[in-house]
Amino acid sequence: MIDLHHIYTPTLLVDETKTRNNIARMQAKAKNNAAVLRPHFKTHQSGVIGKWFRDYGIDRITVSSVGMAAYFAQHGWVDISIAFPVNLRELREINQLLSYGIRLNLLVESEEVVAVLANELAYTTGIFIKIDSGAGRSGIPLTQPDHILSLAQSIKHASRLELKGLLTHAGQSYRSMSKDALHALPVDTFQQMQALRTAIGKPELVLSWGDTPSCSILNELAGFDEWRAGNFVFYDLMQYHLGACSLSDIAVAMACPVVAVHPERDQLVIYGGSIHFSAEFIAADNDFRLYGYVVSLAEGAWLEPIAGAWLRSLSQEHGIVQLPKGMAANYRVGELIGILPVHSCLTVNAMGAMRSLSGEEIGCFI
Amino acid sequence: MIDLHHIYTPTLLVDETKTRNNIARMQAKAKNNAAVLRPHFKTHQSGVIGKWFRDYGIDRITVSSVGMAAYFAQHGWVDISIAFPVNLRELREINQLLSYGIRLNLLVESEEVVAVLANELAYTTGIFIKIDSGAGRSGIPLTQPDHILSLAQSIKHASRLELKGLLTHAGQSYRSMSKDALHALPVDTFQQMQALRTAIGKPELVLSWGDTPSCSILNELAGFDEWRAGNFVFYDLMQYHLGACSLSDIAVAMACPVVAVHPERDQLVIYGGSIHFSAEFIAADNDFRLYGYVVSLAEGAWLEPIAGAWLRSLSQEHGIVQLPKGMAANYRVGELIGILPVHSCLTVNAMGAMRSLSGEEIGCFI
Repeated sequence: MIDLHHIYTPTLLVDETKTRNNIARMQAKAKNNAAVLRPHFKTHQSGVIGKWFRDYGIDRITVSSVGMAAYFAQHGWVDISIAFPVNLRELREINQLLSYGIRLNLLVESEEVVAVLANELAYTTGIFIKIDSGAGRSGIPLTQPDHILSLAQSIKHASRLELKGLLTHAGQSYRSMSKDALHALPVDTFQQMQALRTAIGKPELVLSWGDTPSCSILNELAGFDEWRAGNFVFYDLMQYHLGACSLSDIAVAMACPVVAVHPERDQLVIYGGSIHFSAEFIAADNDFRLYGYVVSLAEGAWLEPIAGAWLRSLSQEHGIVQLPKGMAANYRVGELIGILPVHSCLTVNAMGAMRSLSGEEIGCFI
Repeated sequence: MIDLHHIYTPTLLVDETKTRNNIARMQAKAKNNAAVLRPHFKTHQSGVIGKWFRDYGIDRITVSSVGMAAYFAQHGWVDISIAFPVNLRELREINQLLSYGIRLNLLVESEEVVAVLANELAYTTGIFIKIDSGAGRSGIPLTQPDHILSLAQSIKHASRLELKGLLTHAGQSYRSMSKDALHALPVDTFQQMQALRTAIGKPELVLSWGDTPSCSILNELAGFDEWRAGNFVFYDLMQYHLGACSLSDIAVAMACPVVAVHPERDQLVIYGGSIHFSAEFIAADNDFRLYGYVVSLAEGAWLEPIAGAWLRSLSQEHGIVQLPKGMAANYRVGELIGILPVHSCLTVNAMGAMRSLSGEEIGCFI
């Protein structure tokens, strides 16, 4: 059991039971849909937590950088997709990774990159074409099917490039969408991607779908073969506000020392700022920013969020907690409070390490 | 000279000449005002850059955590203020730091903390009372002079606590203020803090003032004895938008690989996301977010920002750059572009290391 007396500075706590429940639930849902869960490991970035996934039969993963792929390859993962447009400045590192004999999949969206890869890769590599299904971030838009088909032909003819599938990340699910619109999103996208697969003439191509909100909220994702959700491992307040989880599903909380108590304004100053949580917030309007909910910490658990209490502002190392009227007097300088974060991926990345509630130090790639 | 061919992933570049000019200018201004510059080192967090400050006669510094104080003590700094409310969970680390024989100043704002420090500190320690001059973050409000005076008495009577001064951080200078209001801020605050000093009856007490916007924009800061600005070492787009620097004063730029080119929407996708820049942005309205300006990189320099080009969105590792119409076709996947960041402190903290334009690796505390 973790000893809270041994926490001196902001420390990110992980509830293993909640984490495992989140993994088990998503894996069961993917299986129910005859889909393969290839979870995105950029959320936890941890070899230790990676091992927990193995207990549920997960054997392939997604990462967001070449360095993260190398880290997980060292932790025994042998089937890794880098879900980020290939960075041509890291071809040497990619070839080194391939030399370990792992199955590596890369993302492409242009003829130019296919030509370079065909010339420069030293080993056979899986290739996914990145499809933009409306998020507008990267990939070839679905509105340009001819472009996608001609790129598929180029890949099929390129030596050492093995066309594995078509991949999309519907990042628009993070904007507020009606439930109907969210439901229609994978259905419409699947129809178009399936038509592309038929036109390419390789029925074994994998149609891959990402994002935690849709994988959590919807019961089915049309016929997508692969789900790449990542954030669900921990969830966070952003996912809660999107309706993707309950507050009790959130599996990480930051333990923060109270450094000042201001009963006159019903506030606490905590040691815990944007270098710990990241600067991300949820805005209700211009005058309200939510950086976290407040929980009490007990040995081996944290309790339900305190109604009417929230982390209202962050500077580099300070956080300001707003409490219900009269409650500040209950707190003492030097005690610990817990904060449920807005964005668990960025919070983990900012911290670079976690502690389980059983007291185990959990290292990360960062 | 740095070889851009040896940059493979997002890399934070530092222009030493600009940095030194920023230091020299602020030091000259403080001297002109008969004030001592005690720069805040949380912006660069680097032993190497700390050394540059020594060349301009800086011999005392400000930091934001006990760990950062220990790092700079190891780099030879012997007069350090921790400008953050004392974290009572780190008393052992504070006593260890004091055992090195450095002059350490701590910040207090309550009787409760003074009582604990008087009991627990093993060595004589400088104490500043934190004053809230309107920012509303931490400190005793100037509207409670009796509270400040009674705390000063408690400190004077406490063993091993040496009352050194009154310290304020006018963080409201980061909100948009008229030039007149900004000018009045230190003047009004100084009058009240000087009256407190007189009432305490220790004319040698240091009145300490922080924040880069006021120290940069104003020519004088009433009679404050000590200036603790920090961000000015590098500046950034936030300071530029506040009128605190010119774009050519900004001394850091992130080199980012281009990973996709989208001429149809005049955009580039770059390798460089919120884990590199932090998630901080400048918002003009709900539909416009500014995460950075775009510069071309040359060997040993970056050029002026490209008019009409900006970093418009970030996800964990991706950035989307918006370019003027027709310009995207000039870029190739695999080349590097530079980005001037919105908040240099958080960007340095996210990266944990920098590279000088002469090619030197610059390590940080993080």
